[in-house]
Amino acid sequence: MIQSASAIPHVVSASHLSDAGSRFVNPVRILTLATLLSLIGIGEGVAGADLLEQARQQFKPIPTSAPEIKNNPSNPDKVTLGKMLFFDPRLSASHLISCNTCHNVGMGGDDNLETSVGHGWAKGPRNAPTAFNAVFNVAQFWDGRAEDLKAQAKGPVQAGVEMNNKPEQVEKSLRSIPEYVAQFGKAFPGEKEPVSFDNMAKAIEVFEATLITPNARFDQFLGGKREALTDEEQKGLALFMEKGCSSCHNGVNMGGQDYYPFGVVEKPGAEILPPGDQGRFAVTKTANDSYVFRAAPLRNIALTGPYFHSGKVWSLEQAVAIMGQSQLGQKLTDPEVKSITAFLTTLTGDQPKVEYPILPASTGSTPKPVTMTSEAK
Amino acid sequence: MIQSASAIPHVVSASHLSDAGSRFVNPVRILTLATLLSLIGIGEGVAGADLLEQARQQFKPIPTSAPEIKNNPSNPDKVTLGKMLFFDPRLSASHLISCNTCHNVGMGGDDNLETSVGHGWAKGPRNAPTAFNAVFNVAQFWDGRAEDLKAQAKGPVQAGVEMNNKPEQVEKSLRSIPEYVAQFGKAFPGEKEPVSFDNMAKAIEVFEATLITPNARFDQFLGGKREALTDEEQKGLALFMEKGCSSCHNGVNMGGQDYYPFGVVEKPGAEILPPGDQGRFAVTKTANDSYVFRAAPLRNIALTGPYFHSGKVWSLEQAVAIMGQSQLGQKLTDPEVKSITAFLTTLTGDQPKVEYPILPASTGSTPKPVTMTSEAK
Repeated sequence: MIQSASAIPHVVSASHLSDAGSRFVNPVRILTLATLLSLIGIGEGVAGADLLEQARQQFKPIPTSAPEIKNNPSNPDKVTLGKMLFFDPRLSASHLISCNTCHNVGMGGDDNLETSVGHGWAKGPRNAPTAFNAVFNVAQFWDGRAEDLKAQAKGPVQAGVEMNNKPEQVEKSLRSIPEYVAQFGKAFPGEKEPVSFDNMAKAIEVFEATLITPNARFDQFLGGKREALTDEEQKGLALFMEKGCSSCHNGVNMGGQDYYPFGVVEKPGAEILPPGDQGRFAVTKTANDSYVFRAAPLRNIALTGPYFHSGKVWSLEQAVAIMGQSQLGQKLTDPEVKSITAFLTTLTGDQPKVEYPILPASTGSTPKPVTMTSEAK
Repeated sequence: MIQSASAIPHVVSASHLSDAGSRFVNPVRILTLATLLSLIGIGEGVAGADLLEQARQQFKPIPTSAPEIKNNPSNPDKVTLGKMLFFDPRLSASHLISCNTCHNVGMGGDDNLETSVGHGWAKGPRNAPTAFNAVFNVAQFWDGRAEDLKAQAKGPVQAGVEMNNKPEQVEKSLRSIPEYVAQFGKAFPGEKEPVSFDNMAKAIEVFEATLITPNARFDQFLGGKREALTDEEQKGLALFMEKGCSSCHNGVNMGGQDYYPFGVVEKPGAEILPPGDQGRFAVTKTANDSYVFRAAPLRNIALTGPYFHSGKVWSLEQAVAIMGQSQLGQKLTDPEVKSITAFLTTLTGDQPKVEYPILPASTGSTPKPVTMTSEAK
């Protein structure tokens, strides 16, 4: 599964490149002072200009509107429904845990815990990845076992250590609540049985596709606003590309596109890479995939600690240093680590504005919550 | 602690009454068709007119803006801070449980569980009361042991079966996050040490004061729009007053104003009134207060099941029937129960619109979450 750097697809959209290429003939674009200054190189050397062009080859800004999803067209009713479901703890057996519990929209789209805590206070096996911009990942979970957010959404609902529910129980709950029945009908018009576990997942997927964080300072930089990054941050960006970080962390999500062994060059200690979790090996059963994980997307990384699938590292600087050693075989100097970390903080985008959904009340036929761990589901 | 019906203060504001009294001389008011029809009694008998006047003697609508709080003046920065804190799971030792976990703003301001689930999956002793309109209660908790929302907010943060944290740990967490330090400074201008456990509680209090639900159909009725209630609901309202429910459930919150024994006339069974929980007795140590609880506020009652401090009753109709028997010594007929329940559903007001707050990231000096129940706090 390891690809050489040259084989890694550089996710730079044609539209973005052509837009960049056409700016010299677009009079409106060159009329802004910032653009003008950057074109004539004021405030930075030629290296700065190269840095931007080089960055544009490897990275792409987060778009400002939700992407369309293959085989799951969005509509406003579906987004509304998806938001309700995302926040509804009745998807869990206990009626206590919602998607937002571990993918908190106020906390960078995750729970900032080492690993999540679920039904019966069970500790999950891996650090919860952020739901923000997850729609841009090639697949979901640390091992990519879910091909998309729709497939992903079904996992935690059923996992014993997470929401501990069953599809038929979820459907029973949703069908017992008239407002949900009506909302599913509007979200999936023309379907005979719109209330289903599948459609629950589809609605959550289109809502999650709205959880994107455009306008990070780095994206402003990519858009041509060079002064959006300080000198230190630009130095970090240069190092990020020169040292090879961007071989795996590239594209719109600065990662999330392919799978690599944790420890390409040197395995980190058992504390950080617990021997019991072999990553993608469990999915593919291929020896090459032992301790292989999806490269973490680095968008909003300053908000989503602790780091790595084990969640054992709380300091972003330490995470950068570990990556240098384990993936690149380089002992990064303290100033290099600091610069790269400074650059990574520029990946924090505008956080989604989410109005808390008003959830419809349960009815007499809604299954009761099961909070005791000894009770049958 | 039991008061006779005549001694119970009828919380009807002078301003509201004078407004009602002046409507005959306000030409703008009588120009609406609905008002005109109601004045000449179209669509209802004289009993209807009496019903409205009688209701206005006992009940008061939820105001449309947050009330001012004694000794805790509100300001926009304090409300913003309070909202952040209300949603911040870092107030709990585990970093998993926030105020919103049990007082879910999308679910009527509570968790719709029998009793709440807290740290280590511990089951709390009583049903979580709604945070909505709680600012209008005479005191907080089922036994009134907290004199106001400020005092209340400090309880669950420290309770071992809830958030399991300590004031000094909360302060340490908040002081470790620069954005919180800045926001406390703005919310409590001129204070030497704005970041404190006390101020945390004050900020939460002013935010909670915004969690009010005006414009319920019953409030529209009180405002003179008689057709806001159906005939069945008006019948229920009449019964609610005639049978004596409103002796305890009156005022702006339809309850929450005074304390009464559960079982004024006849104690319900141990399943519903567990012998181990003697209610207000634990607060006052007065024999008269044995099994005494604050009359539940009935605002949004259709959204806040299950019912009673034990949370053992899931059906609102059943709760009404039990109340008739235990508090009034009356076996209400099925149609009476149905009418009263229909009336109670008209107490659901406009639910608060809350934009999810973006919480600032932890720093290296923020205390780490303690999720294991065996770990020291």
